[in-house]
Amino acid sequence: MESLYVIKIGGNIVDNSALLAECLDAFSKIEGQAILVHGGGKLATSLAANLGVEQTMIEGRRITDAETLKIVTMVYAGYINKNIVAQLHARGINAMGLSGADANLIKAHKRIHPSIDYGFVGDVDSINVDLVEQLLSKNIRLVIAPITHNGDGQLLNTNADTIAQSIATGMASHYNVHLIYGFEKEGVLLDVNDPSSLIKHINRPSYQQLKQDKIIFEGMVPKIDNAYQALDNGVKSVIIGKAEKMNALINGTTGTTITA
Amino acid sequence: MESLYVIKIGGNIVDNSALLAECLDAFSKIEGQAILVHGGGKLATSLAANLGVEQTMIEGRRITDAETLKIVTMVYAGYINKNIVAQLHARGINAMGLSGADANLIKAHKRIHPSIDYGFVGDVDSINVDLVEQLLSKNIRLVIAPITHNGDGQLLNTNADTIAQSIATGMASHYNVHLIYGFEKEGVLLDVNDPSSLIKHINRPSYQQLKQDKIIFEGMVPKIDNAYQALDNGVKSVIIGKAEKMNALINGTTGTTITA
Repeated sequence: MESLYVIKIGGNIVDNSALLAECLDAFSKIEGQAILVHGGGKLATSLAANLGVEQTMIEGRRITDAETLKIVTMVYAGYINKNIVAQLHARGINAMGLSGADANLIKAHKRIHPSIDYGFVGDVDSINVDLVEQLLSKNIRLVIAPITHNGDGQLLNTNADTIAQSIATGMASHYNVHLIYGFEKEGVLLDVNDPSSLIKHINRPSYQQLKQDKIIFEGMVPKIDNAYQALDNGVKSVIIGKAEKMNALINGTTGTTITA
Repeated sequence: MESLYVIKIGGNIVDNSALLAECLDAFSKIEGQAILVHGGGKLATSLAANLGVEQTMIEGRRITDAETLKIVTMVYAGYINKNIVAQLHARGINAMGLSGADANLIKAHKRIHPSIDYGFVGDVDSINVDLVEQLLSKNIRLVIAPITHNGDGQLLNTNADTIAQSIATGMASHYNVHLIYGFEKEGVLLDVNDPSSLIKHINRPSYQQLKQDKIIFEGMVPKIDNAYQALDNGVKSVIIGKAEKMNALINGTTGTTITA
């Protein structure tokens, strides 16, 4: 099977034009098929502040009221997505930016939770695997914004890590999928303030230990939980590391590699 | 050849959720291939006002500075585009929203003008005809936002009427293309305040006369000029009329039909 790299970059990369440029340079040099999933936190937050829309976060998740949904749809599916696409074309990459609503790429449902109303937050139901395969086969590289829909006309704000994991898992029967989370740090660190304390390899037993010892902290837990969901569902490897070192991440010479 | 309806709806429709819903109902009932091109003026204007970004218009065209480009990219390619796409899926239509940057759908260049600097305004160079044909052949209906790119990483704000005309013209060798401009009026009117004064048919000599008599006014002139450019380049018919009467427009029972 052909290789497919599903690469997720977070808001810290998207907000920093120099880091983003380095990351897109690396993305454009990937051989084989590749998909980019982007987040985009700060710009949405600052736009909300400028517009006087109050933001509530619960357990690291933005509560998405109607006005916030409007803002994240504008920022994620509009500004960030189209700028990345344009910048990839400048690097000779035939990029196409899509949200989950486009051609039903990602169907989701409004999150159901016993006590918290997350608002217009979507949990992924399904990926349009045929569409992704058809576009990849035309040498189109997808750039995916973390906005989904429920099929009944409602857009939903969806965690970009989860989208990357869902896409990777969905495509695992068609490609050798490698899921890469590019962010601002070297990878999972033993000491969060010391980049040289990189943990190069995590497996299930060591993950349990690291969580128990609280070395793996709040924001990292859902990332690694998603990684295991992907590995359990056919994804070949999950790598976490510095977005601008994409080539080294792909080669396995940097970052943290997570295996079953 | 198969029929293709290229339908443009303006900001007045997009801003009015009831009109938009009627228009999307009609769009979803079209038999054969169809593409929707949308504008979206008022929302971008109000967002700019809320953010304190001053707007300058020259001859009906927005001057697009960097901040305005950011706003129109967010509003057109993000909010409006994705909401239309989600609402079409709710009507059983497999819609995909694209900007001109996506898979190089519409390449443009920054407008060159001897005296006015329009800023980041793009004039269309080319349409990715193969891409459009491939997507249509998969029964995907395109929803196109009026944002283009120059291939060197720069997004550009482009007139939606011109985009509709360029798409229609570009596809004319592959389909029997009918170009429909849906807006808030019945069509071209002899008396702008009297909907019953609809001019049902315009040809070149009558257009010259109507322009000379100033019955066809400022905003309508570029619309009809675009119509003639399309007809000169193989488009079968151009129809202008009420967006929410899309089915009647297609059947030719309402609106103004323009022919060579």
